[in-house]
Amino acid sequence: MRKLLLASTSTLFGQSYLEYLLKELQSFFIGVNVITFIPYARPGGISHDDYTTMAATAFSKIDKKVIGLHTYKDPIKAISEAEAFYTGGGNTFLLVQQLHELQLLEPLRNKIEAGTPYFGTSAGSNIAGPSMKTTNDMPIAYPPSFDTLGVVNFNLNPHYLDPNPNSTHKGETRETRIREFHVFNSTPVIGLREGDYILVHGNRNSLKGKGSARIFEAGKTPYESQVIPF
Amino acid sequence: MRKLLLASTSTLFGQSYLEYLLKELQSFFIGVNVITFIPYARPGGISHDDYTTMAATAFSKIDKKVIGLHTYKDPIKAISEAEAFYTGGGNTFLLVQQLHELQLLEPLRNKIEAGTPYFGTSAGSNIAGPSMKTTNDMPIAYPPSFDTLGVVNFNLNPHYLDPNPNSTHKGETRETRIREFHVFNSTPVIGLREGDYILVHGNRNSLKGKGSARIFEAGKTPYESQVIPF
Repeated sequence: MRKLLLASTSTLFGQSYLEYLLKELQSFFIGVNVITFIPYARPGGISHDDYTTMAATAFSKIDKKVIGLHTYKDPIKAISEAEAFYTGGGNTFLLVQQLHELQLLEPLRNKIEAGTPYFGTSAGSNIAGPSMKTTNDMPIAYPPSFDTLGVVNFNLNPHYLDPNPNSTHKGETRETRIREFHVFNSTPVIGLREGDYILVHGNRNSLKGKGSARIFEAGKTPYESQVIPF
Repeated sequence: MRKLLLASTSTLFGQSYLEYLLKELQSFFIGVNVITFIPYARPGGISHDDYTTMAATAFSKIDKKVIGLHTYKDPIKAISEAEAFYTGGGNTFLLVQQLHELQLLEPLRNKIEAGTPYFGTSAGSNIAGPSMKTTNDMPIAYPPSFDTLGVVNFNLNPHYLDPNPNSTHKGETRETRIREFHVFNSTPVIGLREGDYILVHGNRNSLKGKGSARIFEAGKTPYESQVIPF
């Protein structure tokens, strides 16, 4: 039975890394000793080692050990033997390029489908959907495809921001960008605000956190929802 | 001699389409009768025809005729015979996908190098640099490459926004994103604020508009400049 926790952000303003999620993570990772950390998104260009240390420091507070996937000689084997996964945020293009290049998407998908717990934040949540086409990130690296895990049947837009009615800036709003996505694509999109996350147990998707999410479906007006409608 | 006008945005808040640029465009397109419009970026999913009408309406105010490139049976031939170009903003991924698919990048590059005036706004300015890797847009379409015209030796970040020191949002700032770009790429980047534009005459690049631009070079602290330093 699939078990995922997909968060909009790793960190809330004024808090430490993963702080607001620790209680939830304790029950999500119950029975797990070692979490395999996927560090490829490298926020701000941080090294794989430093990023893994960041994750390990946070998880040590709930007595979980973290090992970076980049430290294994054979990452495909490491994935097949992992107890649980955490993919951190950063640049989605870089993350997806690495996962394709190292041929890790299929092994990871298989393990998640077989019930291995998967936790993602930001870019790490983005890749759970069928494609990375609703990321906010800058295309600093060219992945061989925008296809991602497809272990949930919706795309995420993490760090979702509502249009600011007082803005005089003429760059596209997040809503405009997602609606442009739907001119050419039919996958529904969840605009997930910071502080909110989705818990997936089998085919049940629950919205948790502070409130409602913004739901975008092709051909429909975007709407607020306190549940995940698909 | 190359002749380009690369603008951050087509429209300023509270103004009509291209209004703030019309005077400059009048002298930029002096002697030109017909402008070939490249509508593929389709802002908000607008049709090629409707987008061309928008551009034609604005250019009629300075007595220029506009013809959409999509109306030609042979767009490569249309490019080779064009008097001048305007590429409108919208989604850079879609624009670049179309230009690659229709094999228009090389003919367009050759014409610009030969001195045919090229005007771009937003996505249309983005593609003048070596790559589209510093666009703000959402990857709603998958282009066969991120390479673009390379008729200037810098990348642009249009609609540049300064980091907001009072923000509690944890999504990456524009500065963070561009600095991530420089972890993996060495092309300098100009953060071009709305209202500003770059005039290229041969090898001379002038910054015009309201003020200074934010300059990002690999390995350097970003800085303000009232001239284009490369």
